[in-house]
Amino acid sequence: MRKNKKVNAAILIIGNEILSGRTQDTNTTTIAIWLNSIGVKVLEVRVIPDIEQTIINTVNELRKVNDYVFTTGGIGPTHDDITAHSISKAFNLKYEIHKEAFKILEAYYKPGEFNDGRQKMVWMPENASLILNPTSGAPGFNVKNVFCLPGVPSILKSMLGGLTNQIVGGEPILSQTISLKTVESEIAKSLSTVQNNNKDIEIGSYPFFQAGKLGVSIVIRSENQSKIDNCNSQILEFVKEKKIEIVDR
Amino acid sequence: MRKNKKVNAAILIIGNEILSGRTQDTNTTTIAIWLNSIGVKVLEVRVIPDIEQTIINTVNELRKVNDYVFTTGGIGPTHDDITAHSISKAFNLKYEIHKEAFKILEAYYKPGEFNDGRQKMVWMPENASLILNPTSGAPGFNVKNVFCLPGVPSILKSMLGGLTNQIVGGEPILSQTISLKTVESEIAKSLSTVQNNNKDIEIGSYPFFQAGKLGVSIVIRSENQSKIDNCNSQILEFVKEKKIEIVDR
Repeated sequence: MRKNKKVNAAILIIGNEILSGRTQDTNTTTIAIWLNSIGVKVLEVRVIPDIEQTIINTVNELRKVNDYVFTTGGIGPTHDDITAHSISKAFNLKYEIHKEAFKILEAYYKPGEFNDGRQKMVWMPENASLILNPTSGAPGFNVKNVFCLPGVPSILKSMLGGLTNQIVGGEPILSQTISLKTVESEIAKSLSTVQNNNKDIEIGSYPFFQAGKLGVSIVIRSENQSKIDNCNSQILEFVKEKKIEIVDR
Repeated sequence: MRKNKKVNAAILIIGNEILSGRTQDTNTTTIAIWLNSIGVKVLEVRVIPDIEQTIINTVNELRKVNDYVFTTGGIGPTHDDITAHSISKAFNLKYEIHKEAFKILEAYYKPGEFNDGRQKMVWMPENASLILNPTSGAPGFNVKNVFCLPGVPSILKSMLGGLTNQIVGGEPILSQTISLKTVESEIAKSLSTVQNNNKDIEIGSYPFFQAGKLGVSIVIRSENQSKIDNCNSQILEFVKEKKIEIVDR
């Protein structure tokens, strides 16, 4: 176990439908929250089209500079599902029928329903490890540090639980949020001072407009709870001094 | 005007809050739909953290291979808003007070309210062009083909209308959707044949699960309406043959 080490990931969303604006991606949020909870920090997200060479190049670029890469999309039965084939090429592996996946889907479908289209979903890179799918049968897979998940959000979500044991995270990334009834410009200078005094802490400032309320959420993120607490006190100090109201959010 | 030419863009989402899963990005969809309507195709989206060197490197990579780059986030008044400064560095330009932006914000705020925090928002790359903000005053800006927009979705949305005339698109990208009461595996083979017969058309297949309905939306995209029509007829042919029901969506 590599505790006390920073573990990073990239998310690669594969799909023309996201780039065209037709479909709103939500998988990034789902994966990021799950990864945070197991001590993996997402350093980059990319959304790319269903183009083989683009998938190959991007996967090869990302897998070299991240501990983990998670792809979504392109592992279904239709012609535009080219992720498994592209990953095979990226790793220079044979693209072939995965015997275990074949057995799973053969058992999943009623006799006669495991047709050509569905059989496409058991073609994978040679020796890929399966990621089980409790929702709709067809497994995802991983090759080394690249984990390939489906694009349908509910199916993807149902597969993450089974994956948790396969990911070795670092220290969990902790966060604390302070929401204030103010505007960013009122606290910018003081917050900047706190950031300068706590250089290894991530302090984000996010304005919100919600149900008639206007305010700013300050988010403190670190692997170290006492550093968060310390930073939090420094923020509360100037909040008190400036007589800014703390609000629930 | 460069009509009849393909015009491409990349979207660069700058912000730790997206990578942590705290905030669901919706700006990608907003920008992509707007760009489509003016004939610009989004080829890539990246989400990156608020780290200066990462912003510089990514902007410099993307602006060389895309006709346009649109960034969101990091142009507010707080310490984590480093987009304008990073863009200055990316282009090797001075980072300085933009006189026109200064005048706009000086007039926008009540006397005495144009404080230090707010004044940070008029620091921009030398000679940047402004992108006006009808919602909250503080303008975005562009340097050459890089357009910098805010992260708050409602503000960003309100700024796109004024930007439309500055973007020279190609042929508008047209699309047609056929939604079917079927599963992907039932149509995979026929759809693949249609795709092979129409290699320059983008055909996407997207399963949906909605209000108890289960189906597949087929999306045909091209700059050429008659090619779309032709492709559409070929799809309707196998749909009829297979006695698949067409549904509204």
